[in-house]
Amino acid sequence: MDANLSRGEAPAGGSAYAPAFLDALVGAGLLVPTGVQGLYGRSAVFEAVGDGLNGAITALGADQLAEVLRFPPAMGQRDFETSEYLQSFPQLAGTIHSFCGDERGHRRLLARLQDGEDWTDQQQPSGVVLTPAACYPIYPVMARRGPLPEAGKVVDVLSYCFRHEPSLEPTRMQLFRQREYVCLGSPERIVAFRQLWMERGQQLARALQLPLEVDVANDPFFGRGGKIVADSQREQKLKFELLIPVNDGAPPTACMSFNYHMDHFGALWDIRQADGGVAHTGCVGFGIERLVLALLRHHGLDPARWPSGVRATLGSA
Amino acid sequence: MDANLSRGEAPAGGSAYAPAFLDALVGAGLLVPTGVQGLYGRSAVFEAVGDGLNGAITALGADQLAEVLRFPPAMGQRDFETSEYLQSFPQLAGTIHSFCGDERGHRRLLARLQDGEDWTDQQQPSGVVLTPAACYPIYPVMARRGPLPEAGKVVDVLSYCFRHEPSLEPTRMQLFRQREYVCLGSPERIVAFRQLWMERGQQLARALQLPLEVDVANDPFFGRGGKIVADSQREQKLKFELLIPVNDGAPPTACMSFNYHMDHFGALWDIRQADGGVAHTGCVGFGIERLVLALLRHHGLDPARWPSGVRATLGSA
Repeated sequence: MDANLSRGEAPAGGSAYAPAFLDALVGAGLLVPTGVQGLYGRSAVFEAVGDGLNGAITALGADQLAEVLRFPPAMGQRDFETSEYLQSFPQLAGTIHSFCGDERGHRRLLARLQDGEDWTDQQQPSGVVLTPAACYPIYPVMARRGPLPEAGKVVDVLSYCFRHEPSLEPTRMQLFRQREYVCLGSPERIVAFRQLWMERGQQLARALQLPLEVDVANDPFFGRGGKIVADSQREQKLKFELLIPVNDGAPPTACMSFNYHMDHFGALWDIRQADGGVAHTGCVGFGIERLVLALLRHHGLDPARWPSGVRATLGSA
Repeated sequence: MDANLSRGEAPAGGSAYAPAFLDALVGAGLLVPTGVQGLYGRSAVFEAVGDGLNGAITALGADQLAEVLRFPPAMGQRDFETSEYLQSFPQLAGTIHSFCGDERGHRRLLARLQDGEDWTDQQQPSGVVLTPAACYPIYPVMARRGPLPEAGKVVDVLSYCFRHEPSLEPTRMQLFRQREYVCLGSPERIVAFRQLWMERGQQLARALQLPLEVDVANDPFFGRGGKIVADSQREQKLKFELLIPVNDGAPPTACMSFNYHMDHFGALWDIRQADGGVAHTGCVGFGIERLVLALLRHHGLDPARWPSGVRATLGSA
C-alpha cells in the first residue's frame, strides 16, 4: 500500500546474477563500495544527476502547489506501528537501538567486542525506526492538522529510506532516496492525481530517452498470507509501476510507482476530508538512485556525453 | 576525536529549560514535530536556508579541490567497530536491527505488538550502524585506495548523522546534517588546514552577521575514564568550536568545529602518506541545522526579511 518499488530483480543474495554493471559503476567511481551489500557512497557525478532529476520532478510538479516537507531518515516507533508496516513488510524494516547502560555495561560491551562476540545484545530500542517510504512520516502530521482543505492537498517529500534486503544488484540498495508527491482528499481527486502522474512519469522517462513500460504491480507482502493481499492489490489495480531495463539478463526495474492507498492511511490516522469523510490517499514515487542508474545504463557512464535533450531535461545542458 | 558538536546545552531531558524558541519554530511551521524529541520535519523555508549555507560552504572551499563524496546515513558495522566510536561514545550510537524470522516468528511479533508488549526483541542486528559523524565512512575508503597523493587530500562530505540524545532543545537533534571538509596528509598539512578553516569559519559567521566566539573544546567521552580523555583533548588543543548563542538562558551552541585527529584514524585504518608514514587527519564540521537555527534566532523567523548582506551570503539576495 506504499510507494514500494518492488518488482523487477532476482531475490536478494540470489542465484547466478553477475553484477557486471555494478563492477562498471564502481570502476568508474560512480558508486563507492562500503563492504556492505546495497550500501554505497556516491560520487559528485552521481549526485549531480540525482539533483538534476529532482529539479526535473520539481518542474513537472510546479502546478501541484505542493507543500514541501523534508523529514530525516527516521520516524517515531509509535507512528511506525500505527502505519501497519509491520503487518505487511516486517522483513524490510529497520529499528534503531542504542546503548543505555552504565560504566559496568560499557565494560561488558567492550569485552564482547574484543572477544569478537555479538555486542549488539547490549543495545536497547531507541523508539526510532528508519523511514521505510518517504511518505510515511506525513500522515500523522496531516492528521494532527485537522480536516483537509476543500480541494484536498498535495505534499512533496524526499528522504533516504531503508529496506533490509542486501543485494548485489545496484538497483536494490538498503538505503536509497525516494522523491514523492502525495495526494490526500476525495477518491475522485486521488484517482485523477494518479492518472495525471502516470502520464507525467512516462513523459519524463521519454524526455530522458529511456525505454519504458507501465504495468500493474504489487508490493512484496510478507508470507503466505501476504500473497493473498498482493493478489488483491493487483486485482484492484492499486499499484502501477514504470519499468526500465537496467540489470543484465534480469526483468526491468521499477523506477517510478503510482499508488492508490484508498482509505488505508486515512483510516489508520483518522485523516478527514473537509466534509468529514475519511480521506483517501495516493502517491507517485520516484526512485532517485534507480533513475540515475537507468540513465547511466542507457546513455553511458559519462553524463557529459549524454544526448543534449537528456542533459537539457536534467538542467545540465 | 571526531566532528562532534558537543558543547553548549543543558543535558538531554534536563532541568527547567523552557523551549520557547522551539515553540516559536514549530508555531512558524519551520520545524514539524513528530512526537519524538529531537526528530522534526523541516519546511521548505528551513531547507532553503540550509541549501544556502551549503552553497556558501562550497564557495568558501572551492580552492580546496576537494573530492565530493556523499554517503547514505549508515555505515557497515565492521567499519564502525574499527573506528573505536564504541570505546568513546557508546551512548550516542544507533545500530539498525531487522526481523529475519519466518511466518511463525512474524505471528509472535504481531502478537506482542497487539498486546502492547515490546516486539523489538524479535529484531536481529543487520550489520549496519547509523553514521555518527559525516567523515566516518571515508577513512576505510581512503585506506583501500593506497597511499595518499604527495600533497595529501581533501574530501567534501555531507550526511544525516544520528546521535541518541533526545532533547527539547532544537539545537540538539537525534538526526541532523553535518557538512565537513576532511583533510588527510602530513601533520603540517592538517595543522595548516585547520588554521585556515578556523579563519574561514569565522569569516562565514561574520558574513552571516552572527555573534560568535571560538574556544577550545572536547567531545562528550563516556564515563569517568572519558573525563581523562576529554581533559587530554583540551590540553592538546585538538578541538576548537565556533559558538553562537541560540537557546534562551543557555550557554552558546557549537555550530562549527575544527578538529585535529592526529594519527588516530590513520593508524586505525592504516592510511598512509605518499612517503609511507601514517596519515594524520583533521576536519572542519558545519552543523547545518544549528547554523540555520542560529540565523533564525538572530535575524527572525522570516528569511525574506533578513539583512541583505546575509541573504547575499546565502545566495538568496
